[in-house]
Parts: sequence; C-alpha cells; structure tokens
Amino acid sequence: MAKKPTWVIEKERGRRAAAAETLWLFGLHAVRDALSNPAREVLRLVVTKNAQDKLAEAIAARGLTPDIADPRKFPVPLDPGSVHQGAAVEVKPLDWGDWRALARGDGAVRSVVVLLDRVSDPHNVGAILRSAEVFGARAVIAPARHSAPETGALAKTASGALERMPYIRVGNLGDAMEALKADGFWMVGLAEEGTQTIDQIADTHAEAHIALVMGAEGPGLRERTRGLCDQLAKIPFARDFGSLNVSNAAAVALYALGERA
Amino acid sequence: MAKKPTWVIEKERGRRAAAAETLWLFGLHAVRDALSNPAREVLRLVVTKNAQDKLAEAIAARGLTPDIADPRKFPVPLDPGSVHQGAAVEVKPLDWGDWRALARGDGAVRSVVVLLDRVSDPHNVGAILRSAEVFGARAVIAPARHSAPETGALAKTASGALERMPYIRVGNLGDAMEALKADGFWMVGLAEEGTQTIDQIADTHAEAHIALVMGAEGPGLRERTRGLCDQLAKIPFARDFGSLNVSNAAAVALYALGERA
Repeated sequence: MAKKPTWVIEKERGRRAAAAETLWLFGLHAVRDALSNPAREVLRLVVTKNAQDKLAEAIAARGLTPDIADPRKFPVPLDPGSVHQGAAVEVKPLDWGDWRALARGDGAVRSVVVLLDRVSDPHNVGAILRSAEVFGARAVIAPARHSAPETGALAKTASGALERMPYIRVGNLGDAMEALKADGFWMVGLAEEGTQTIDQIADTHAEAHIALVMGAEGPGLRERTRGLCDQLAKIPFARDFGSLNVSNAAAVALYALGERA
Repeated sequence: MAKKPTWVIEKERGRRAAAAETLWLFGLHAVRDALSNPAREVLRLVVTKNAQDKLAEAIAARGLTPDIADPRKFPVPLDPGSVHQGAAVEVKPLDWGDWRALARGDGAVRSVVVLLDRVSDPHNVGAILRSAEVFGARAVIAPARHSAPETGALAKTASGALERMPYIRVGNLGDAMEALKADGFWMVGLAEEGTQTIDQIADTHAEAHIALVMGAEGPGLRERTRGLCDQLAKIPFARDFGSLNVSNAAAVALYALGERA
C-alpha cells in the first residue's frame, strides 16, 4: 500500500482535531436554541420525523437538511441518562472572541463576571449560566480542566443560556484572575469566613467591576484562588448550620450585587 | 395448608404497609446525618468495613449493630446512577407532627414557608431545602403526588437539610393554602407576570407570615394555586430573556424576604 502524501495526512489530522472539538446538543429546546443562534456553527442535525415537524420553523430558518432518524435507533452518542426527544445537533463550541474585552464591556456600566473554581456538576453550571444571564453578568469563566464541559447535559440544564451567556474556559484560573485585576476588577471570593456580607460589598463597591469567585462545594476555593481574592464575602445566614447549593449561592450573590448596581 | 388466623393476616398487612413507608438513604454524608438525627427512626444500617470505620462514631452513638456488606455486592436497592460510598440506612420518613403549628411557629417572629406546586426534580427540591434552612424558613410544603419523593437521591442533594428542614407532603396543595391563609399567611406566588418585585413585598409585608409559592419550571403555577395567591411577585431581571432555575429563584426570593425580616 502506497504511503499517503503529507498533505493527506495533515488534512486527516486536521479533520480529527476539528472532530474532537464538536459536541452534540440534544432535546427539542436545546436544539431549537442552537439552530436559532447565528453565532452557533451547526455541522449536522439529526431528527425523528416527529421532532422535524416540531422544529420545522428553526430548521427552515437555518436552511439545513436534517438526517431523519428512527426514534428506536437514534444514531447519536448521548450523555448517559439523557433524553434526546428525537432531536440532536452536532455543533462547534461557541467562539466568544477576546474574553477580556467581553468581561470589561463598553465601560458604560460596571461589569460583573462569575469565576468558577472547579465546579464540575453540569446541573450547577447550567443553573449558574441562567442566573448570570438573568442578573446581567457578562461572562462565566472557568478553568478548562476540572470544570463541567460544554456538553449536551450542560446545554439542557442551561435551558438556552449556553447560547447567549459566554461560558469561557481558560487555561489557568489564577492567570485569568491576574488579568482581570489588571483590568480593574475587584475580586470577591464567596466563603463562609467572609468578614463582610455580599450586600455590604455591593454598597462599598457600587461602581467597581466585580468578579465573583465561587469554589466547588466541599473543597471550596483553592489556595491560589483564595490568595488572589481582594476580599472574602459571605451570604448572611439566618441559622448557624446548613449550607447553600453552589448555584443557589451564585444566584443570591448576583442578585445582591445587581440590586444595588 | 391451614388458613392463617385473622390476626396473622392483619399483622402481615401492617408489616407490609409499614415496609412500604420506609426508604433507603445512602452515601456517607446522608447516612451520618440520619444516624445523628434523634428524630430519625433507623431500621437497618448496611455498611462496608471501610464505611463502618468512617462512621464509627455515629454508629456507636446510635448503639446500632450494622450489617456488614461486601462492597462488590452491595445488597441495597439504590436509585439509578447513585453512589452509595459503602453506606446505606433504611429509615422511616420523618414525622414532623402538626404541620400548621410548625408553619406558624411561636409567633415571636414572622414565619416564612415555601410551597412547591409539583416540583418533581430531586436536585431542585434538595437545593430548596438547603436554602429554606439557611434563610430561616419554617417548612417546605408540597403535594404528596407529583413532587420529588423523600428518597436517597433527594437526601443526597439536600446535603443534610432533609434531616432538619421539614419537608411536608400534603394531600392537596390548594387545601393547605386555604389552611395557611386562615392562619394569617400572605400567599405570594412567584411568577414572571408579577406586578411587584419580591423585595417590594418584603417591605410592604415585613410583619406578615409569608408563604412563597413556586411552580414547576415550564408549567408554572397551576390554575387553582395561582387563584389562591394573594399576590404575584417577580424577581427583577436585568435582561428581557432567560429564566431562573426554580431552586435559584427560591433562593433569591428567600434571601430577599429574609434580608428585610
């Protein structure tokens, strides 16, 4: 067998690399949102006849010819335990461009961003993307490793927010914190031992860009992450025991910051 | 074969009925919380040797002899996809007694309770129990049917709060609302079309007992539930699109109500 020319090898390598960077989103809601998002590159759409009818409008707007699938043999690799509802799209991760510019915004109003230090549960990250969107944060930033990846399960729990709310994966969270500090962000780590409450910080830093830094439940903020925070803040509890789910804590903190914005 | 005497049949029937009302909690954290809760009736404890060591203190305090299990053949019916960490307890649901008295409290401070209209995802109910505890609500009340049941999965996401925060299942949510209204509760339904924000209501009803009524995501509040609300309230959003996860919405509303309590 003849040796493949170098350009063929390169092309195949490129195709494999590109293939590795695609993901499958599934479920009627997530698929409709992806199709309707002009920034979302859609490679392939697989639907049952039934789902095709339900998504007819979004499919027509895309000008895409779907692969029709048998609902009993749905030919798409799905996350375990997930429900495809007869619809799945293969897409590229969204490209949000220069994340530092995105985080700063246009300077007209103060920016709030959320930093997640190894929050790995897609249910939590999905819910945080929704709260970040609703309360006007500019981005959710997480390290590329040990964070919930951009998957169908995350898209489903994000209920559309993954298409609109920048979920930025950085190589190193500490480096991203240094960059944000250089850009004028006040780093607020959420931790039980915070000396001020989150609404006190909302008052004292009403004009500042704020990065809200959240650790994973259990381990909390890692040492370097904690060291890079300008301040630790807490959510005031009515009782001495118990703890908040991480997405619930993020929602309350974003609400408290936004309320006084 | 001789016919069984009536009393034997009755006894067996009673045992079956009682058996149907037990549940398995699993995972080191949930099992330790259950063992440490004097109000929790524990019928059986199954642990691996390894888990027995880790739970030694809680087991000794209970004075319970565990069944030792082989980690590879853990003999307990678990929820799908769940992780037992070598520990499971069979328990009775907690008996919270007279839920109306519990909801009213001692009258020294105003009461807040959460009503869930068919919230069926245990992740969400578990997170809501945690927020309810942390922000000082007295009970989370849900209809017996179409709500997340008290299961191991719920206990796990509740991270201990299931042992301390009353999760009351009532026959009919509308009837429970009528009872709470008769007891002086102001019924606040959370809905996008609310005319006032939740913090406005916190101001105008700072002294009143408040029942925060949440619908499931998607269907929202059912017609009778909505009709029994004294007022619909919304959480102010920074943007015109997006939505909050139901547990995140509950956390924000409880925080807003508590902040002004």
